[in-house]
Parts: sequence; structure tokens; C-alpha cells
Amino acid sequence: MNTLIEFKNILVVGVGLIGGSIIRSLKDTNFSGKVYGIDNNKEAITLAHSYGFIENKTENIPSDLDGLLVVFSVPVLSIEDAINKIERIIESEDVLYTDTLSVKSSILSALRNLDQKILNRFVLSHPIAGSEKSGFEASASDLFKNRLTIICPHEGNSNADLNKIEGFWNSLGSYTKKLSANDHDELFAKTSHMPHVISYALMDSLFQDLNEKTFLYSGGSLENYTRIASSDPQMWKDIMVANDKSILSSIASFKDSLDKLSKLIEENNSDGLIDFFSFVKQARDKSISIEDN
Amino acid sequence: MNTLIEFKNILVVGVGLIGGSIIRSLKDTNFSGKVYGIDNNKEAITLAHSYGFIENKTENIPSDLDGLLVVFSVPVLSIEDAINKIERIIESEDVLYTDTLSVKSSILSALRNLDQKILNRFVLSHPIAGSEKSGFEASASDLFKNRLTIICPHEGNSNADLNKIEGFWNSLGSYTKKLSANDHDELFAKTSHMPHVISYALMDSLFQDLNEKTFLYSGGSLENYTRIASSDPQMWKDIMVANDKSILSSIASFKDSLDKLSKLIEENNSDGLIDFFSFVKQARDKSISIEDN
Repeated sequence: MNTLIEFKNILVVGVGLIGGSIIRSLKDTNFSGKVYGIDNNKEAITLAHSYGFIENKTENIPSDLDGLLVVFSVPVLSIEDAINKIERIIESEDVLYTDTLSVKSSILSALRNLDQKILNRFVLSHPIAGSEKSGFEASASDLFKNRLTIICPHEGNSNADLNKIEGFWNSLGSYTKKLSANDHDELFAKTSHMPHVISYALMDSLFQDLNEKTFLYSGGSLENYTRIASSDPQMWKDIMVANDKSILSSIASFKDSLDKLSKLIEENNSDGLIDFFSFVKQARDKSISIEDN
Repeated sequence: MNTLIEFKNILVVGVGLIGGSIIRSLKDTNFSGKVYGIDNNKEAITLAHSYGFIENKTENIPSDLDGLLVVFSVPVLSIEDAINKIERIIESEDVLYTDTLSVKSSILSALRNLDQKILNRFVLSHPIAGSEKSGFEASASDLFKNRLTIICPHEGNSNADLNKIEGFWNSLGSYTKKLSANDHDELFAKTSHMPHVISYALMDSLFQDLNEKTFLYSGGSLENYTRIASSDPQMWKDIMVANDKSILSSIASFKDSLDKLSKLIEENNSDGLIDFFSFVKQARDKSISIEDN
């Protein structure tokens, strides 16, 4: 039995890559309560039920579930619709909410426009785990093992609720750190959304120039480097729209660095290039060895 | 005994990551001839000798080695100096030359300014294998296993010599494809040098903005994505200088794609973003599955 999870019932809304991995992981971890799952894709529900991951065969969920955790794992811009849908289904008052979405300020704004009760019982979280693959078929029970989950507390959250959500992620093998929603969005614009912007743009330019020759001589490295450009278009459209300002400011900063480097190449400035690359290498090697400790 | 290698003696010039991996791999593959190695770093020679990878303890190499293959594995802009040094040491006429460098047109120009005999016996090659680590300590005997090596034939090469060099790479576990030096440089500017340009620029912008917070919440993905920004500064300075024109044109093309994507984000153009990401994903997934066949 898993004693870290203080819920009797868990309802996962959206059983794609992340939601699917949560229900698989709950099964693996011997959660003693009941797990439910809903999704617009009815086949995913049938499949998840047939594997014994969820109680329900259809979208019919008991309305009186108590000790309930609802986990929203839907595209960023679908969160309001998903919350409204759950409000229509669940009548119990004994409910805590969390999510797995990659942008937090926009959800917080959406929540502030809804019932204050939901806002207060909603603990924002973001497991830093994923894949360029998507859908329930790509989900895996060990997706969260030894991976970080960010928790973004807000003014309405109680410590007790924050602890329960941290315990939930810990039980799936994840460790947690806290950040405000704004800090989260600014930071992840740079460290996660920018690599996606860059990979999509690089792949676009290579296909324009090289077409089917793109991977013909790359020997595997380019495939690896551009892996995230095969991520789910809908998911990443939502992230770009919801976190647009932070992403645009990160693009501007990246372009400054790119222009600085381009100028050094144009001028054949050997000393400048060595300095540029050495600064980056030293800063990177140092930061990573600090983090390793 | 390794029957693919048609040489009696092999001299590796530069026993860093790539050259070091060649001598380790020759030992593993039971090459029946003799292996020599030289390097500006005397410790690397002592170490390679102590492991039994090379015959020589010092830079003193017999001048009369016949059936000799010389492999140049030095930074791109050091190739002329390295060739001149070998010309002073080796008196034998029975010599074939190759290299492992990442830019080919500049070497070809350098060779055209030297003795025609060397040009004709020099088969340009580029094993697509490497690491962000550098130096003999980072070398590995399986670095070339199942990896591609590009051969760039030129007008002075005989088929017999090309076959001997292909046999050499095959014996180390590598498979080979042919490309002209110009095509190689244009293609690798896009598929290899650009990912390095981008990684260095991204890391530079992140350190300017986030400093020691860069990797604090990234959970491993960013470390992985920016791995190549810890590559050897000297090596990459040389590549940027030697292949400047192709790299600058690749940067221009990448910036066009980045600007197109930025504009879609600025306009919150959902349909345009879905189209952009879907085009890239489909083209990528299709190209990679073609290559897998």
C-alpha cells in the first residue's frame, strides 16, 4: 500500500502521455484507492479500463466521490473547459485539484475567474517529464521516476493541501521544488519552450533547404538533436499562445546571442570565437557540476 | 588478424578524442601491422605507449615506414602545419594519407597549394562520430562502430586508394558514403555546424539572463539539449572560420524560419502555429522512417 497518497479516489482528466503515465504509475505503486479517467478519446478510456488502470468503462463517473484528487492533464488552453466539465460531474465537496500543464500563469488567471472555492483547492503542478511521442499508447509507468515536479503555490493554497500534492508526486517517484507561477513561466520559456522553438525553426529551415536529404548523411546526431520537433503540434501551439510574452522575450535574447556569434564568424575573429565558446563551456560545465553535487 | 586493412604501418597525427579512438580501435580489431602516434601533448603519447596502443614512446618515428597510412586528426586550421611536419619526418614514398576533419574544402585548397603527389595520395574522410568531451582520455575503442564515415573523393584520387581508405574505416566498424568536398561542407554547415551554433548561442543567452539558475529547475532535458555547447572551443573556432560562408548562409536561413515562427507567436495565430508545427513534425517523422528502411 502506498502511504504517501492521502486520497481515496483519483480522477485523471486526459489520459494521454502524461495522464496515461499517472494511471499506469498508480497501478504500479499499489495505490489502495480507486482510479478513474476521462478523455475525449473514448478508445483511450476503453483501453485503460481493459488494462485495469481505471474503474470506469465509459465517461460515467460517480458524482459522490469523496477524498478525491482531480488531476487535469489536458492541453493548456483546454483547462477552463475541462474544469467546467468536472464541475458538472462531481457533486462532492471533498475535492483537491492539481494539473500537469507546462504554463502556469494562464491557468491561475483562468482559476481567478472561476469559483473561489476551486481556486483555493487547486495546487498547480508541472512534472518535468515528457516525450516527443504523445497519446495513451506512449505513456509509461516510470515516466516520473527520479524526475522533478514543480509546484507553484498561490495565495489561496493551504500548507496541508500543498503537502498532499507533494506526497502524490513523491509517491510516483518524482521529487518536488517550489516556484511562483510567474517565475515558472519566465524560467521555462527559456529552458524548455526555447529549445522547442529552436528545434521547430531549425527543422523548418533544413526541410526548406534540403528536403528529403536532411537526415541522409547525419549519422544519428541530428535526429537526436531535433527529436523534440516531433512533439505534439496542438500541445505546443497552446504553450506558445499561453506563454507568448515570456517566449518572445526569450527569442529576442537568443537572437542577440546569435547575432553576436554570427558577427564573430563574419569577421573571422578567432580570438573572439574562442572567448565566446570558452565562456559558454566553462559556465555550462561549472553549472552542471554544481547541480550534480 | 584484420584483413580489411591493407597497410603495414599506420601513423596517427593527433591522438585526441578521434585519433585516440582510432589507435584504441586498431588494438581491439587485431590489426597485424604497427601503429604509431604523435601529438603536441607529450603525455598523450606516453600514455598511449604505456597502454600498448602505439610503438613509439617519443616523437621519434622511423623515417622508412612503407605500406604506410597517415591519418591526420588535428584541428581544421592546423592541417598544413601537420602535413609539413610529417613531410620532414617520413622519407618513404609508399604512403597514403587521410584525415578526420569536419570541414573538407579548406583542406582540399591547402592540399592544392602543396606537392601534387601528396594531393593525389590524400583521400579526404570524415567520421561522423564525436563527443562534447575532448582529448585522449575521452577516446573510446567503439567510437566508430555502426557510425557513418563520409569519403570526399577528388580528381587526383585513384579508385584503388579510395577502396583502401574505405576498407580502413570499415575495419573500425564504420560504414561509408561518398560526397564531394563542397557538398559535404554545405550539408554539414546545416546538419552539424548549425546545431553547434544554436547550442552555443542558446547557452550564452541563458547564462546572460539566468546565470547560475540556468539548470536549477530543468530536470535534465536542457542539460541533454545543450550538451554540444561544452565541445572543444579550439576545434569549433576552426570549423566556424574554415566553413564560414556555408555556416553564415545556414544561419540566415534558420533566422528566416525563426522570424516566421516568432511572428505567428506574436499574432497569437493558432492555425498558423498548428500548421508550422505539423509541417515540421510530418516532414521529420517521414524522413526518419525513410532513413530507417
